[in-house]
Amino acid sequence: MEKKIYTPGILQYIPFFYVIWSDDLVSASEVNVVEKAIEKDPTLNKAEKVILHSWLQVDNPPKNEEFKNWKQTISNSGTKLIEGVTYPLTTFSQKVVCHYHDTCPFNDQLKDIEINLGIQPNHYNHLFEVEVEHNLSSNSYKAQEVSLILKGKHAPVIDKFQELLKRPIFDWDIHRNKEDFRQIVLNQVKYLAENGYGAMAYPKAYGGTGDMEGYATIFENLMYIDGSLTIKFGVQFGLFGGSIQKLGTKIHHDKYLSDAGKAELLGCFAMTETGHGSNVRGIKTTATYHKESDSIIIHTPGKNDNKEYIGNALHSKIASVFAQLIVNGKNEGVHAILVPLRNKKHELLSGVKVEDNGYKLGLNGVDNGKIWFNQVKVPRQNLLNKYGSIKEDGTYFSEIKNPNKRFFTMLGTLVGGRICVARAGLGGAKMALTIAIKHALKRRQFNDNIKIQEDLLMDYPSHQLRLTPLVASAFVYHATLDKMMEIYCNDNQPDKRKVETQVAGLKSIITWYANDTIQECREACGGKGYLLENRIADLKGDVDIFTTFEGDNNVLLQLAAKGVLSDFKSEFNSAGFSSVLKLLSQQLSDKLATVNPLYSNKVDKEHLYNPKFHKHAFDYRTRRLTYTLAMRIRDYIKKGVPTYQAFLKVQTHLLALGKAYSIELAYNTYFEFTETIKDERNKELFQKLGTLYGLYEIRKDASWYLEQGYIGSTKSKAIRQRVERLCTELRPHINVLVEGFGIPEDCITAPIAN
Amino acid sequence: MEKKIYTPGILQYIPFFYVIWSDDLVSASEVNVVEKAIEKDPTLNKAEKVILHSWLQVDNPPKNEEFKNWKQTISNSGTKLIEGVTYPLTTFSQKVVCHYHDTCPFNDQLKDIEINLGIQPNHYNHLFEVEVEHNLSSNSYKAQEVSLILKGKHAPVIDKFQELLKRPIFDWDIHRNKEDFRQIVLNQVKYLAENGYGAMAYPKAYGGTGDMEGYATIFENLMYIDGSLTIKFGVQFGLFGGSIQKLGTKIHHDKYLSDAGKAELLGCFAMTETGHGSNVRGIKTTATYHKESDSIIIHTPGKNDNKEYIGNALHSKIASVFAQLIVNGKNEGVHAILVPLRNKKHELLSGVKVEDNGYKLGLNGVDNGKIWFNQVKVPRQNLLNKYGSIKEDGTYFSEIKNPNKRFFTMLGTLVGGRICVARAGLGGAKMALTIAIKHALKRRQFNDNIKIQEDLLMDYPSHQLRLTPLVASAFVYHATLDKMMEIYCNDNQPDKRKVETQVAGLKSIITWYANDTIQECREACGGKGYLLENRIADLKGDVDIFTTFEGDNNVLLQLAAKGVLSDFKSEFNSAGFSSVLKLLSQQLSDKLATVNPLYSNKVDKEHLYNPKFHKHAFDYRTRRLTYTLAMRIRDYIKKGVPTYQAFLKVQTHLLALGKAYSIELAYNTYFEFTETIKDERNKELFQKLGTLYGLYEIRKDASWYLEQGYIGSTKSKAIRQRVERLCTELRPHINVLVEGFGIPEDCITAPIAN
Repeated sequence: MEKKIYTPGILQYIPFFYVIWSDDLVSASEVNVVEKAIEKDPTLNKAEKVILHSWLQVDNPPKNEEFKNWKQTISNSGTKLIEGVTYPLTTFSQKVVCHYHDTCPFNDQLKDIEINLGIQPNHYNHLFEVEVEHNLSSNSYKAQEVSLILKGKHAPVIDKFQELLKRPIFDWDIHRNKEDFRQIVLNQVKYLAENGYGAMAYPKAYGGTGDMEGYATIFENLMYIDGSLTIKFGVQFGLFGGSIQKLGTKIHHDKYLSDAGKAELLGCFAMTETGHGSNVRGIKTTATYHKESDSIIIHTPGKNDNKEYIGNALHSKIASVFAQLIVNGKNEGVHAILVPLRNKKHELLSGVKVEDNGYKLGLNGVDNGKIWFNQVKVPRQNLLNKYGSIKEDGTYFSEIKNPNKRFFTMLGTLVGGRICVARAGLGGAKMALTIAIKHALKRRQFNDNIKIQEDLLMDYPSHQLRLTPLVASAFVYHATLDKMMEIYCNDNQPDKRKVETQVAGLKSIITWYANDTIQECREACGGKGYLLENRIADLKGDVDIFTTFEGDNNVLLQLAAKGVLSDFKSEFNSAGFSSVLKLLSQQLSDKLATVNPLYSNKVDKEHLYNPKFHKHAFDYRTRRLTYTLAMRIRDYIKKGVPTYQAFLKVQTHLLALGKAYSIELAYNTYFEFTETIKDERNKELFQKLGTLYGLYEIRKDASWYLEQGYIGSTKSKAIRQRVERLCTELRPHINVLVEGFGIPEDCITAPIAN
Repeated sequence: MEKKIYTPGILQYIPFFYVIWSDDLVSASEVNVVEKAIEKDPTLNKAEKVILHSWLQVDNPPKNEEFKNWKQTISNSGTKLIEGVTYPLTTFSQKVVCHYHDTCPFNDQLKDIEINLGIQPNHYNHLFEVEVEHNLSSNSYKAQEVSLILKGKHAPVIDKFQELLKRPIFDWDIHRNKEDFRQIVLNQVKYLAENGYGAMAYPKAYGGTGDMEGYATIFENLMYIDGSLTIKFGVQFGLFGGSIQKLGTKIHHDKYLSDAGKAELLGCFAMTETGHGSNVRGIKTTATYHKESDSIIIHTPGKNDNKEYIGNALHSKIASVFAQLIVNGKNEGVHAILVPLRNKKHELLSGVKVEDNGYKLGLNGVDNGKIWFNQVKVPRQNLLNKYGSIKEDGTYFSEIKNPNKRFFTMLGTLVGGRICVARAGLGGAKMALTIAIKHALKRRQFNDNIKIQEDLLMDYPSHQLRLTPLVASAFVYHATLDKMMEIYCNDNQPDKRKVETQVAGLKSIITWYANDTIQECREACGGKGYLLENRIADLKGDVDIFTTFEGDNNVLLQLAAKGVLSDFKSEFNSAGFSSVLKLLSQQLSDKLATVNPLYSNKVDKEHLYNPKFHKHAFDYRTRRLTYTLAMRIRDYIKKGVPTYQAFLKVQTHLLALGKAYSIELAYNTYFEFTETIKDERNKELFQKLGTLYGLYEIRKDASWYLEQGYIGSTKSKAIRQRVERLCTELRPHINVLVEGFGIPEDCITAPIAN
């Protein structure tokens, strides 16, 4: 077979055409990019332009014969692809021309194509029968810059804290015996307190800096050391200390807060009971005011009414006990009371019984226990009385008259804890991703017969697809949680209920995400991921319970959904309800007007990568689910089904709305965040991650969007392909991305990551 | 407001109409059932029939006013719903009539409606403002009967084995120290061997019963005791002993098999290396034949070439070592050689190094280790030479000339192990489901304000939806794995490759299912699920690695997909390929001919519950994915992309096909199994579980079916609703179903399940 020789003009385009046509995704917009470049290219004559155009017909692609000629021409040139250079494909083309012809200048039009199509060596390096040097990462981005963007204003706090984490006391090791493990963790907690981190979120007068936002970031960083340490730290300073700070008044602050922050007074947060976890309002422990002795009597009335899973229960001297406060025979609802558990010799006080909760799936460095109270008497002043107090005359008083509202105001103080739990989950996910990706960038398995070296795990499309969207999600959730804490801490933010709703939803989707991610990383590391030394196994056991504590995810999602509905709630059963529904229905029709057949099958890259599309899709989903939910509930109620039962019947609908709302919130928050990035190059990278998150989430719920006719099947398939493609495009930067998480090197002890 | 009084004829239908219309799912076929009954009902006069018909117009449902009247009439009658009676709704109707009128006979037409609509008390008990007695379970089915059907022909073996499991040596406890735990597990393994279970699958001459199928069932039962025991047992008797049985010849059987079966000779299966797990063909350990000494020299050439994760490595005297066999300088591929590791005093032999793999996420009762060989010499006869031997003259000989085929023949012996791993995963899932459901049938949380008692977790629709399909899947996979083992053990079954393909896929989907199920159960039990005493936590840690060992799931799924493709493989690149594709395309068009708009939006219960629909949907998916996959690969190859690279590019497509194929296989196998159930009542129950599995799986892949236009959006929504409804319908039987798994009561030690 005779070799077909091309003119230099044609030849320089051949590697590009070869790459473009070997892909399934030749789209009109891509062809457009190439055509424009050809039109402008001064190195081409008219005849060459005609030929090149003839190879750009989507409905009449080049014949296979032509394709093979290209391949052979490239192959015979013996040109090597160098992935590290700035424009690998343009440089490659140039070299091919150099082989066959005398002159071969660098062509700016080709460079433009390479930039505008965003094609990366990983798309095409398999196409050339040439040896390719695999680089760990491209040089386009710097991990340090990525990390700085993520840290934001907290950089000084984080950097200083990470220095402290280098101390030998935080060295990682395997601890199987719970008593030893607990002692080690306790020492670490005390050490952190000595260095001022326990009191961090408290006011200056009590040893802190009042920096709750900073507290949340260091909380996440603790996960790089150990999950048990993180949770024990959170129980002592966030829950126990936090209950004094937020539910108590000055006398409690003065008496306890400094000592709590220094870990000189260890305490626990005794809310959950064996019989009542999610339903806090139904707890059974009683706190009965006894007028004669001016004291409160704490009592566990029956079986399953004991406190359970109480962290720090074995080390604590005192507990914030949540109980039904009964004053003058009237139940005033759940209140918190400080109840001493042990004396200075650490002996249990009379009437108090504590039992170890024993071994758990994870967090065995935390001393969870059960606590029973048998008519334990404490002074009236031990009631944390910010929202409800017993006056000196023995009568109950609260500024919040509505018991319902009072209860939710007290529980609202848990919101900060929920953000922290989500952050800890996120920290675990980042750690697991870093380990799994570092491993995948070294581990090789299987190869083509003709190759000597096996392929890197990270170069398998399936491996890219299983890990890259999870990396993107970590960036999205990081920025979202940072923002949420900022809003929560902003005293000028009046709508606390809204933040609560949002945090309830975010805590659920993020802790589930964390568990899924860690599991995926475990499997992606194969047998190595199963060994404790590689850290993922412990992360898995520790993070697992995050979906349950600080509010069960399923319960919280319903709470979030009810929050979304609450704007309509006051209208329920009233005349105005129909008109509200009508309004919502109108909004939806307006939205759907955009969704004509053209829109629902729009598959070009510009559209699919456009944040407007993602925002519209998320917004539409939330609104549509809200509307249909409201309609269903209204119908049930009209038929006489009691409200409680009606809500039961739509439970799965509520969960769907809760998720949809939270994902939309995360996407929007992240997108706003990326807009603040000054450096354009990094901004582009961060927005690409947002695009991947957006498309990945739409893809996950594709069945719903298809059912609604919001997307057509062509678009649905295109989204799937774009998700895969984005993962490949991000492949060269994946190491920078995980290093950009900013996990201290000392913390990455896993042998497989080194 | 004046109370509207109805005639007895009308009145008896009112509870039914009230139930039917309070549901979203009034379908044409349901209306049809009721209309026919009314037509036939001799107790009704013409006027009454007219009124009743007027209340059955789907496009013109009864007014809310009417609805409220029904409700009040029922409510005023003060009738109590008794869920335990045979026809609860008919009986209830009769009682309502009794309240208002003198005569109130039992009406057979109403009974027919109740049966034909398949409505269960759980559908409607919330509708009546009456106190309802919650039963743990209905009496319609018996756990013992369900269990007997599952056990099938293995009942005697299982019953006898479960008796043995009652011995104190198998009592469950928490073991944190790996050395202690391993010793306990070793003693248990020896005890089982003493009782004849080690040799069970071996021929009678070597102490066994040749019952490989029975072996698989007891293997699953071991999971009810402990995961470490199960795996250690499998390593010693299945992998180590199995390698001698299946890869060795008579001299090896005579010398080792009896001792292996009695656990008097402990051995390990040394295949995986640090650098090579999934790619067994690439392992680096060498076994070089040395002619002068007539021996084979086993050697670990470099870093990462050591054996790793080898179970039983610390207790073993000998190992089946997989290595590249080099004879006269030629690499004959991977073979297994018996290599002694330790002497009688349990000291390591010269040249052998063993290191403990340390603590793992689970299975800490199994002594996994790394093994290095430094020029270790063993006699030529130690080569397990069934498929390849070194003759006395020092030349290599194998009846299987093709090295590729030889390799896969040897690996084919692993298939039995893969079935066992899937069964063990299934056992773990059953155990977790039993615990989670027993808990959900006792644990109460939240309530309506008007109720005294809180609601049972199991009565929450979201709880039913998260657990019931998993229970149904357990039934499906149980029957499927039983059948697979039967086929695998049938020597008359010529197509071993097909079984391998099938098992590869099933192992993947079932071990993933097991992990998802255990995780769901953990979360469904909240904090209680996190405590080791409740067993789910250990199951989670133990079963986790099942997705990786005995073949990584992602690799196995691709193997399965390639198996499906292999029918076309021989045609690749040849002239005949196009015609094969044409044929496949024709088959698909024939299939799609059925899928007209009427079909793709058919939503009546008869259709959605019809196995024909499920089979068609699964078959269509497998064929369609095969066709498009073959097309894509052909296109790549036509363009000159090397085969290996072409397969890389379609990796996610391969995974989808592997899953689709396996789910179809499971559904079909289960359905055939249900056809053999003699008792009609139980058959109906089993088939209902199959229906739930079918719809649940179609629902999971709804986005694909919608993309293909195979189902329309109405149908997609209807499937979702039917899945939820089936879960509710199965609610009264859920306890019978999990007790039907047949887990011995002594094994259910979890306090929350008792």
